[in-house]
Amino acid sequence: MSDFFKDIPKLAYEGPDSPNPFAYRHYDPDEVVAGKRMEDHLRFAVAWWHSFAWEGGDPFGGQTFERPWYPQDDMGRAKMKADLAFEMFDILGVPFFCWHDADLRPDQGNFADNLSTLDEMSDHILGLMESRKTRCLWGTANMFSHRRWMSGASTNPDPEVFAFAAATVKSCMDASHRMGAENYVLWGGREGYETLLNTDLKLEQDHMGRFLNMVVDYKHKIGFKGAILVEPKPQEPSKHQYDYDAATCIGFLRKYGLEKEVKLNLEQGHAILAGHSFEHELAVAGAEGMLGSIDMNRNDYQSGWDTDQFPNNVPEVALAYYEVLKAGGFSTGGTNFDSKVRRQSLDAEDLVLGHAGAMDVCARGFKAALAMHEDGGLEAARATRYAGWDTPAARAMLDSDLASISAAVLRDATNPAPVSGRQERLENWVNRFV
Amino acid sequence: MSDFFKDIPKLAYEGPDSPNPFAYRHYDPDEVVAGKRMEDHLRFAVAWWHSFAWEGGDPFGGQTFERPWYPQDDMGRAKMKADLAFEMFDILGVPFFCWHDADLRPDQGNFADNLSTLDEMSDHILGLMESRKTRCLWGTANMFSHRRWMSGASTNPDPEVFAFAAATVKSCMDASHRMGAENYVLWGGREGYETLLNTDLKLEQDHMGRFLNMVVDYKHKIGFKGAILVEPKPQEPSKHQYDYDAATCIGFLRKYGLEKEVKLNLEQGHAILAGHSFEHELAVAGAEGMLGSIDMNRNDYQSGWDTDQFPNNVPEVALAYYEVLKAGGFSTGGTNFDSKVRRQSLDAEDLVLGHAGAMDVCARGFKAALAMHEDGGLEAARATRYAGWDTPAARAMLDSDLASISAAVLRDATNPAPVSGRQERLENWVNRFV
Amino acid sequence: MSDFFKDIPKLAYEGPDSPNPFAYRHYDPDEVVAGKRMEDHLRFAVAWWHSFAWEGGDPFGGQTFERPWYPQDDMGRAKMKADLAFEMFDILGVPFFCWHDADLRPDQGNFADNLSTLDEMSDHILGLMESRKTRCLWGTANMFSHRRWMSGASTNPDPEVFAFAAATVKSCMDASHRMGAENYVLWGGREGYETLLNTDLKLEQDHMGRFLNMVVDYKHKIGFKGAILVEPKPQEPSKHQYDYDAATCIGFLRKYGLEKEVKLNLEQGHAILAGHSFEHELAVAGAEGMLGSIDMNRNDYQSGWDTDQFPNNVPEVALAYYEVLKAGGFSTGGTNFDSKVRRQSLDAEDLVLGHAGAMDVCARGFKAALAMHEDGGLEAARATRYAGWDTPAARAMLDSDLASISAAVLRDATNPAPVSGRQERLENWVNRFV
Amino acid sequence: MSDFFKDIPKLAYEGPDSPNPFAYRHYDPDEVVAGKRMEDHLRFAVAWWHSFAWEGGDPFGGQTFERPWYPQDDMGRAKMKADLAFEMFDILGVPFFCWHDADLRPDQGNFADNLSTLDEMSDHILGLMESRKTRCLWGTANMFSHRRWMSGASTNPDPEVFAFAAATVKSCMDASHRMGAENYVLWGGREGYETLLNTDLKLEQDHMGRFLNMVVDYKHKIGFKGAILVEPKPQEPSKHQYDYDAATCIGFLRKYGLEKEVKLNLEQGHAILAGHSFEHELAVAGAEGMLGSIDMNRNDYQSGWDTDQFPNNVPEVALAYYEVLKAGGFSTGGTNFDSKVRRQSLDAEDLVLGHAGAMDVCARGFKAALAMHEDGGLEAARATRYAGWDTPAARAMLDSDLASISAAVLRDATNPAPVSGRQERLENWVNRFV
Ligand SMILES: [Co+2]
Ligand SMILES: [Co+2]
Ligand SMILES: [Co+2]
Ligand SMILES: [Co+2]
Ligand SMILES: [Co+2]
Ligand SMILES: [Co+2]
Ligand SMILES: [Co+2]
Ligand SMILES: [Co+2]
Repeated sequence: MSDFFKDIPKLAYEGPDSPNPFAYRHYDPDEVVAGKRMEDHLRFAVAWWHSFAWEGGDPFGGQTFERPWYPQDDMGRAKMKADLAFEMFDILGVPFFCWHDADLRPDQGNFADNLSTLDEMSDHILGLMESRKTRCLWGTANMFSHRRWMSGASTNPDPEVFAFAAATVKSCMDASHRMGAENYVLWGGREGYETLLNTDLKLEQDHMGRFLNMVVDYKHKIGFKGAILVEPKPQEPSKHQYDYDAATCIGFLRKYGLEKEVKLNLEQGHAILAGHSFEHELAVAGAEGMLGSIDMNRNDYQSGWDTDQFPNNVPEVALAYYEVLKAGGFSTGGTNFDSKVRRQSLDAEDLVLGHAGAMDVCARGFKAALAMHEDGGLEAARATRYAGWDTPAARAMLDSDLASISAAVLRDATNPAPVSGRQERLENWVNRFV
Repeated sequence: MSDFFKDIPKLAYEGPDSPNPFAYRHYDPDEVVAGKRMEDHLRFAVAWWHSFAWEGGDPFGGQTFERPWYPQDDMGRAKMKADLAFEMFDILGVPFFCWHDADLRPDQGNFADNLSTLDEMSDHILGLMESRKTRCLWGTANMFSHRRWMSGASTNPDPEVFAFAAATVKSCMDASHRMGAENYVLWGGREGYETLLNTDLKLEQDHMGRFLNMVVDYKHKIGFKGAILVEPKPQEPSKHQYDYDAATCIGFLRKYGLEKEVKLNLEQGHAILAGHSFEHELAVAGAEGMLGSIDMNRNDYQSGWDTDQFPNNVPEVALAYYEVLKAGGFSTGGTNFDSKVRRQSLDAEDLVLGHAGAMDVCARGFKAALAMHEDGGLEAARATRYAGWDTPAARAMLDSDLASISAAVLRDATNPAPVSGRQERLENWVNRFV
Repeated sequence: MSDFFKDIPKLAYEGPDSPNPFAYRHYDPDEVVAGKRMEDHLRFAVAWWHSFAWEGGDPFGGQTFERPWYPQDDMGRAKMKADLAFEMFDILGVPFFCWHDADLRPDQGNFADNLSTLDEMSDHILGLMESRKTRCLWGTANMFSHRRWMSGASTNPDPEVFAFAAATVKSCMDASHRMGAENYVLWGGREGYETLLNTDLKLEQDHMGRFLNMVVDYKHKIGFKGAILVEPKPQEPSKHQYDYDAATCIGFLRKYGLEKEVKLNLEQGHAILAGHSFEHELAVAGAEGMLGSIDMNRNDYQSGWDTDQFPNNVPEVALAYYEVLKAGGFSTGGTNFDSKVRRQSLDAEDLVLGHAGAMDVCARGFKAALAMHEDGGLEAARATRYAGWDTPAARAMLDSDLASISAAVLRDATNPAPVSGRQERLENWVNRFV
Repeated sequence: MSDFFKDIPKLAYEGPDSPNPFAYRHYDPDEVVAGKRMEDHLRFAVAWWHSFAWEGGDPFGGQTFERPWYPQDDMGRAKMKADLAFEMFDILGVPFFCWHDADLRPDQGNFADNLSTLDEMSDHILGLMESRKTRCLWGTANMFSHRRWMSGASTNPDPEVFAFAAATVKSCMDASHRMGAENYVLWGGREGYETLLNTDLKLEQDHMGRFLNMVVDYKHKIGFKGAILVEPKPQEPSKHQYDYDAATCIGFLRKYGLEKEVKLNLEQGHAILAGHSFEHELAVAGAEGMLGSIDMNRNDYQSGWDTDQFPNNVPEVALAYYEVLKAGGFSTGGTNFDSKVRRQSLDAEDLVLGHAGAMDVCARGFKAALAMHEDGGLEAARATRYAGWDTPAARAMLDSDLASISAAVLRDATNPAPVSGRQERLENWVNRFV
């Protein structure tokens, strides 16, 4: 164990009453529920960027953390960072990690060196993976931090940036493939606009659609078996991103012929910023069979930017996992913590405790969701509410037309009586489980 | 002239320096710009509901207005209301009006009487139209106020409500057709949910898609030549409406095969509630060729509900009309004021001045937009910014694939240099016109 | 038992595993914790307006409920409503109720009849109270629904409205005093503005300050021993209310010399609308010794208006009660449910279940808060964090001046080292209790 | 002229029709209106931080600008930055600048060196000021960027940080005094909290109150004649700042006995983030005689963070200056542009055009406000609306009590009739001027 984590023990499950801050009270990876180990249901992943690359800055202040791998401008320290990351994966016992290229090694300022250093880091990480159980949930390309991306990647007014983006995504897909990643993710942080005044919205979206088709083609070409996922977010950093929310992304995918090829990676915080609940976004994707994976975090309800906090509200988490279960649970996807400790949480133990608390919250929430799912009370109430649609007459009406229906309404003097929606009863029911 | 409007003169254009509150300072219907009369560019419409049916209530208080046609539970007073509406159309000189069935006559509590009273009012209005120039921009069905609609219309869990909705829309399409309406609009005020817990989102959306297909079929069957429009709104009255915003509606229309048949009626206030600027929504629809008509109002930026105020900010209105002009201007659509005077604006003159001020604001904004459009400075800057995409090499790249592009980037050491987006210069340019 | 509640049993505590929807799983009024019965800690109150006067309307639709006491324009039915309210108080076993004058009887359109009918209803309710245990937590005057209040009550531009408001508040204070109310509340629903353009903000606030001083004087004159409370809310119905939030109200009270006489009634939903968490508002009031009572509800985080839903998130409720406990618990105040069932919740059982679920949520939350309070872990961490201020040197510094401190910093080369704020550890700690 | 600004001419007034981007169309500093030069009315200031210290980063990406004075870690380049700043002041012809210590020179990591380098830069700037007309509107201390401030300055749990803050503010007040600044500003960027869980809100506010009293004492001690101003902002960077908005700050100042000593510096963007219009904040401060100065920028209405854009909406700016004029115009205060060019606006000309456009917008807005002020139409309407309060009877009522008023209402059968608030008429009136 390195000095950095030296006082921090490997976390074990100790049960709900343990007072030990460095223990799981609810997450037991080996507990079997609904025929599967908890680890295999939840598929937790640590996000390299928040936990190892972010230095504690915000728009009004710089670095607050002090890590042995700073400054992050050196390949030697990039490898030390990876070694320490794997130490934390072990401490937590997480099965997965996720990364951007820029998290793994510093941007070199040109593509050739970006490529060779990414390869070098991939080798290093593959080396680490040999003796560890932690695998790669997904990789992605950071096409928003370096100044070259300031006006977008695939939607940039400059074709050279499109080209640089294409080469970069290829390199990250190759690295993901080598690492055995189960998904490849695209987040369009600067695919959008700062002002409509200088933007050709139609051309930019067409280019983004074309780019995503190239990504899908390349996936098939190299035989990558994982899922391609896009992650909606309405804004920040840009004023307006094209991948606003689940419905917008699904419409976009359908327009560009990708609805069978691409799924969604949904994040709680981005749902909130777009004016939706997380369960709404999950339900929208689930209804289309397009729920791929989740970035489980929480957004401050009183702040208007992406706070990326660790989840800590069990009832909310339970409703989210209920939608995941309705959609069949995770296949290639998982629970990535796109979450960071607060800027004032300076210590290695804060990093560990942030994850540990979130994993417990998720485990409690997931078990509550599973209990609701197995009880079936909610689905039974839903079935009752819509039972009228199960009749041949109702189905026939759906196949008919306005004039016929109007005639029938007049003939039968149809005059429906409102029926209670019973929201409070259902909310009380949920509270029996969470 | 009736007593109600007795002290209010017919408004005429008096030029920008007129101190007369009952005059237009910027809107001259007969002024010809870009080859068309201003009246024919802007195509103003008065909304029957806000100006004649709304009684001044809000969630914390009841009626404040006192109108000669109150209480609104009587067909005689419904006709008086129509007569006075046409008086106001004459006072303002507006070319169009818009209506819901429930604005024209009281809901009768059953379909047969709803139908016959709607027919009776249609006759009455057709009579009024004979001697007046004001025409019908669009009609629509109010399927959100009566308690039968509390859980939705086409998305209701009860098939009988779907049937009642189908019959109602048919009756309103028939009435619109008789009145020579240029569009028929659907607003899904309660097509959505209060809680996901009791909602089958997929089934409801499928029913809504089927319903909209029936509407389009019926339009063709009766030979209605107007456009079918849906009006996005994210929420209120329901917690979440399916027609959230332009992008969501467009995705929905594409999914249900309606993207060639249905366009959008976009409202400023609904754009704001969905987290967009109005020009964003217009640009999204315009880019898809689906911009049908507009509900020109304004939403209070510090209030989180649908304030439906009259527009009064010329620079904002100018940016909106600029997008309308980019989309080719109005064909069947127009500028409906989905706007109401404030609850404390009790007098007939408030009603007239609310519209008059808005018409002047729109006229100023439209002329500014036209000047920008004709100057072409913005489009020239945009063309320059994207000029790199006009080369054969750039177009060839779009037709190639990730591996080829990556090889070229390596070969050519492509390393794009960022170029200023010049937002401030463009904003200053706009301020020369508004 | 009346027909209205005829199938609904009196609710009893059955323990956490009871599957009975008509039972308490967490709220046992007689359970003694921290030396007091749960009933005496929580002091639940039913709000007359939401549960008995609200008819299910919203800005886009009218009445959905059908109650035996409708239409609410008759004194006989007003008494029936009171009788049924007391039936529901018995079913729930709540110790308190709260009212506006306009909830108890219809506004009569003039003050003399408003006064006599209020007296008549007070007599009726006093009669009901004789044989029941439910008491009055607080009364208040509805000075926002009738059209006379449209431009404010004590802040109205018309002195006659100020006079009518003064007479009305006197009548409601008298009625509260007769009923033995423990508080008298003022909510300034229309004390604010729709537009600054027609508003004299300074004059209006001075009048409101003077009015509140009259209220306090009258309290002393009649020997009313309860607390005078004001309830902050930022907006809705008006665009902007003067009693924006706790800090604004406290500043207002201090300006008008009322900080020793008036406390706050804080509502979760209003905290959210003002951009604060509920615990923030409670902490602000608690820090000033001005936390009087709470309106416990929840606001939809994705809706921008006052949704007044029943609370259902235990962790959030626990944090709120933790602040109540830090402030010493309730004395005259209590937990009023300023909450309403949803518009689609038509049935008597929805009304009962809404309250029952909320009472269970509050009981769980309160017990979690009490456990945190008794454990003391949070306060111990807080004390450690601020321990530096307990030294004589630190206290002396606070009594010194910039120049002396600057000299000391130079002399001692003071260079503070940042210390972790440990947010995640504390959040995990809280999650052991909720 | 340096290379940096080499192609950019000094801006002159060319009148509204000038097509020259590098000219003023509305701002003529020497134009005399209402007895004063425009320059002396508006008192424009450039903000050192946005225009010279900010490097184009945002939460998702780093530096985009490339300036000759980068990297900003060297005193030589700090002086070059100052020289170039003064070049831009000349190009623009602005009369004022504003600064934080950290803008002028790099933080040195300890107080002694911070002090000596600040003195060195003050000397350098005083040297530049000798031959230029640009003066210092205000100085302030940056107590939010360096990691030592991460948990607050005067509200820090660590007394050593309080001491460092006191020494820092003294040094900045001394520098401001030497430069002849007309104000000294405090912005409490991290005076607030990230989580209530680790915060002693009462102790922190007491310390902040004590600190501000020390600042006022020191001002008097050194004979600084300028105003002490605090700048409200609700949040960002922290989750919640104590100086939430104007009303909160005024309440705070009154609590700590500072209401005669301290005024407010109000920013448009912060008003928006707090849920207010800018004119609301100005009116609140104006009503208390506490309007000191303004940070004129604009916040994106669709983004939830502090966008600090240059103002570009004339009607909004006019309403703001109308409130400034109602409060008597600026004395020590002015119009500081707390505004930055967008991250993609890379070029020197963007910096100049951002300011130039804003100055024109402010000049147009100010002249419109002045015309409204001189016309008096709005104040006349306001006087009419409140005329009822000018009678002896109304004034006597204010001096009486609830019982007397109630008796009078009964005796006189007082029954006020609602009167229109005429919002639309007033909005139309405003639109004649903007
Ligand atoms: Co994410
Ligand atoms: Co995020
Ligand atoms: Co509309
Ligand atoms: Co609307
Ligand atoms: Co309340
Ligand atoms: Co409320
Ligand atoms: Co500022
Ligand atoms: Co700002």
